[in-house]
Amino acid sequence: MSVDNIRPIKWQDNLLVLLDQRYLPDQEVNYICKTCDDAITAIRDMVVRGAPAIGVTAAFGVVLAARQSWVQLADNWKRAVEPMLQDLSLARPTAINLVWAIDQMRKSIKSCPDEENPESALLDRAMQIMDEDIASNHKMGELGAELITEPCSVLTHCNAGALATAGYGTALGVIRSAFAAGMIEQVYADETRPWLQGARLTAWEMLKEGIPVSLIADGAAPWLMKQGKVSWVIVGSDRIAANGDVANKIGTYAAAIAARHHGIGFMVVAPTTTIDMSVENGDFIPIEVRSSAELLQFSGTACAAKGSHAWNPVFDVTPASLVDVLVTEKGVILKPDRQKIRNLMSS
Amino acid sequence: MSVDNIRPIKWQDNLLVLLDQRYLPDQEVNYICKTCDDAITAIRDMVVRGAPAIGVTAAFGVVLAARQSWVQLADNWKRAVEPMLQDLSLARPTAINLVWAIDQMRKSIKSCPDEENPESALLDRAMQIMDEDIASNHKMGELGAELITEPCSVLTHCNAGALATAGYGTALGVIRSAFAAGMIEQVYADETRPWLQGARLTAWEMLKEGIPVSLIADGAAPWLMKQGKVSWVIVGSDRIAANGDVANKIGTYAAAIAARHHGIGFMVVAPTTTIDMSVENGDFIPIEVRSSAELLQFSGTACAAKGSHAWNPVFDVTPASLVDVLVTEKGVILKPDRQKIRNLMSS
Repeated sequence: MSVDNIRPIKWQDNLLVLLDQRYLPDQEVNYICKTCDDAITAIRDMVVRGAPAIGVTAAFGVVLAARQSWVQLADNWKRAVEPMLQDLSLARPTAINLVWAIDQMRKSIKSCPDEENPESALLDRAMQIMDEDIASNHKMGELGAELITEPCSVLTHCNAGALATAGYGTALGVIRSAFAAGMIEQVYADETRPWLQGARLTAWEMLKEGIPVSLIADGAAPWLMKQGKVSWVIVGSDRIAANGDVANKIGTYAAAIAARHHGIGFMVVAPTTTIDMSVENGDFIPIEVRSSAELLQFSGTACAAKGSHAWNPVFDVTPASLVDVLVTEKGVILKPDRQKIRNLMSS
Repeated sequence: MSVDNIRPIKWQDNLLVLLDQRYLPDQEVNYICKTCDDAITAIRDMVVRGAPAIGVTAAFGVVLAARQSWVQLADNWKRAVEPMLQDLSLARPTAINLVWAIDQMRKSIKSCPDEENPESALLDRAMQIMDEDIASNHKMGELGAELITEPCSVLTHCNAGALATAGYGTALGVIRSAFAAGMIEQVYADETRPWLQGARLTAWEMLKEGIPVSLIADGAAPWLMKQGKVSWVIVGSDRIAANGDVANKIGTYAAAIAARHHGIGFMVVAPTTTIDMSVENGDFIPIEVRSSAELLQFSGTACAAKGSHAWNPVFDVTPASLVDVLVTEKGVILKPDRQKIRNLMSS
């Protein structure tokens, strides 16, 4: 039984091909990036979203930037590429994987000779980042699934799935592995307003893999917990501070508070590329506030009263104290704190 | 400055005229009830919603039922009316005000002579129920506003406003009175999925009254609290058990848990007609589960992956232990419990 059938990011015919998540679940349409600017647009406009997927997309965006620079300036290409990398790194503020992937590519750029076309070398590195992401997710899937020791139902928020990564997913990777091991009876998915990642993406992914999924309104999650229907809340992350505070999709903090209130385990699944040791704690993680239109409209149709204002922060921070388990590809941390994270990162 | 400009339920030209809340905020359309069945449809299909408004609508529904019965059977009218009252009482399960209002009308029916057209007497009683509801709301507004002792912002969930009552509202009645007293800087309103009562109705009401309102995704409420942006959560109720457990719109329990987590006051505003002394505690309050279509669609457009399942309970129960204040027209109870509620109800 395969539960690993989705690859949202591909390098095809020398171009970056993204599954356009704005059109899911209705249409499976590709968005083709020919330039670094296309990759920036794809990240900013949420053609692709999810911290690891943004990182992998950015890595390929750097390949496209280098190609453009080489065509334009030949052996002066490194001078032209850096401003593009700067723009790319600003496409969205919260997911640290974006910055991490660009930094990785920057190191490769450094070791490229000025007088050689860098495309092939940089493409190798981007492919490696993509492959490592998938391998990380399988590893986290395995480690996280080991924590689920009897058949149960679980709740997830947003989409930390194949679509949020290069494949397999972080939170949904754990759910995939646990399902394959016979430990998942039912996945409950918060619909995740305003962008409906749960209703549109997580439900689509789970249905595609044959994993039973039931959507709930975000506000229904604590009532679901009260009924004893779920044993774990499993989510991904966009950035984890050095002390273990977790930035993730708005509503994650709500789920974490409710999980603790009901004594339900709260598991965060994220590769170490999501951990930002330069950020002391969650107060210093930049939280993106997007257009109020995302909340006031649906599919372009106004749903709120005309003239309404809205506040639309799209991430929140769950303090480390509410996290029961952090699963990374390097290992599992129970009750994460600054010391444990430092040990993990230096291991 | 008047903040009392909305009357969703009217008796006009001998018919029951409801502001059809399914078309708000886009259109102000009336739904006219000529028969008791029309009133049942209006309640079931959410032309009118909100516990007190459902009660008042039902009272007028009984007038229409009696009129039909008198026309049909003359002095045998009481035999014909009872089955209609039974049907009416089953229109929706959670709001106890529905049953309460029908019981009130039943008492009036009993005291009507068999041989007289009962319409005028029953209409008088229904009008009285409506007027008492508005008076109750003004009284609760006054009592609740007294608890807000300095200018602040507040969060509300769903719509417990003029539209949920005969006028002025319960939770929004307190907010109206507190605003008039200069104590409300900003109202934050949960959009309230799946039916979007917050985005559609509460925003519409507040804008109409000139009270500043900002919408948020339901899942953003705890993050709003974390920022220190609100001092109170103020909600209505559909049924309160004898021990003080509060049934209200799905997501209320989530807000209550988060309010307690952040040390923010949680205020429930409901007339004593919402208190059901026959129900021991919240476990025995029937919780309506509505069609999954309400969740899988957004304003009529499919938003979830095709083939998705959904669980759509539309109410939840907040235990009395999470309620800081219960405001009724008979007085305010701090930290409600069985004994305090018994005292209130017998006062």
